[in-house]
Amino acid sequence: MDKISDVSLEECSQSKYLKPYRLRFTQNGIEKTWDLMKVNDSLAILVYNPFRKVLVFVKQFRAALYWAKTESYQDNGTTKIDTTKYPGSLGLTHELCAGLVDKDCNIKEIAQHELLEELGYKVPLYKIEKITSYRSGIGVSASKQTLFYAEVSDVMKVGEGGGLVEEGEFIETVEIPVDEGKSFIYDESIAKPIWTMFALQWFYDNKYKVAKAAE
Amino acid sequence: MDKISDVSLEECSQSKYLKPYRLRFTQNGIEKTWDLMKVNDSLAILVYNPFRKVLVFVKQFRAALYWAKTESYQDNGTTKIDTTKYPGSLGLTHELCAGLVDKDCNIKEIAQHELLEELGYKVPLYKIEKITSYRSGIGVSASKQTLFYAEVSDVMKVGEGGGLVEEGEFIETVEIPVDEGKSFIYDESIAKPIWTMFALQWFYDNKYKVAKAAE
Repeated sequence: MDKISDVSLEECSQSKYLKPYRLRFTQNGIEKTWDLMKVNDSLAILVYNPFRKVLVFVKQFRAALYWAKTESYQDNGTTKIDTTKYPGSLGLTHELCAGLVDKDCNIKEIAQHELLEELGYKVPLYKIEKITSYRSGIGVSASKQTLFYAEVSDVMKVGEGGGLVEEGEFIETVEIPVDEGKSFIYDESIAKPIWTMFALQWFYDNKYKVAKAAE
Repeated sequence: MDKISDVSLEECSQSKYLKPYRLRFTQNGIEKTWDLMKVNDSLAILVYNPFRKVLVFVKQFRAALYWAKTESYQDNGTTKIDTTKYPGSLGLTHELCAGLVDKDCNIKEIAQHELLEELGYKVPLYKIEKITSYRSGIGVSASKQTLFYAEVSDVMKVGEGGGLVEEGEFIETVEIPVDEGKSFIYDESIAKPIWTMFALQWFYDNKYKVAKAAE
């Protein structure tokens, strides 16, 4: 998954995915502008297998993270990154199973679909519990993200997961023992998004204590 | 602060703040592209006043949030938002005191500067404690954000705060009693960024228990 080569960068005046708009408004009598972008709403699911006491994540390569951690050089007018100096592993993250809310169906059904596609778990809807929702990228897009929690068992594992291989997605399932999850949150050597860290903290605050008390 | 009027939206082919780039790379033999943007690194500080038992936040209008929560209409070829139907209060957030890491100095000194500028607290450096750092906007920019914690007292309050009024910044200080902060995290009617929610959870997990035990 992290065999990355032939990296180059170019300016991109017409991006299908990143399209800036400018909002003009007057705030308390002062004329202002703010540049912003439309980003799809999204969801993410924290997955816990209480039978084997593991938290389940996806591991993947993130181009933006790789770029942010590397330095480029100029080669005949092309901006390149030296992958012998900066290996692809610099772009790997651990994240919750996640997806975009771009389909015209129930948001819990989208969560259910992502659990199957990325992790190979067929989880009944009643096992998918909402944690909370909030606005992400508050300065640029303020898109809505909803967090869910799902307890799974090995009998729900019906597929390999891994994402859409035909679309070139490389996603690896990673299991972390529940006793190690709390130090994982604050281990800065393992890159992870803040919503993954938040959901883990919620888990230790709300679910883990109850599970431990019942043991 | 939320007296918003004359709102219009336009496409923006040349944004100084949002400039898309395209990264080309080969991942495990498959050629790919990913559109991304450079975003400045940033920091945020969770502020607690243990003497009056309040958590201190900034309240401000976020154009991207307002836009994300409203619907526009066409008026003679211009895209507008009806502020009588959608009041400016829809764009208000509660956030940690925060700032960009764009100055050539110690990151704790930048945190110190923001505490003074936004909240009016002159906080000694030794009182500013790092919580953790992580990558923000993992799909688009993966910029680094560092979270800090600062305990303040009323004698440190030397100014009004409020941000750079000469630059048209409207920032209001909001104090929330520490006993109400935990339900505040999950109150979806009050918009706040996920890093504000994460820092609060960290506080209740690490600082509040100790403070309560010492009472």
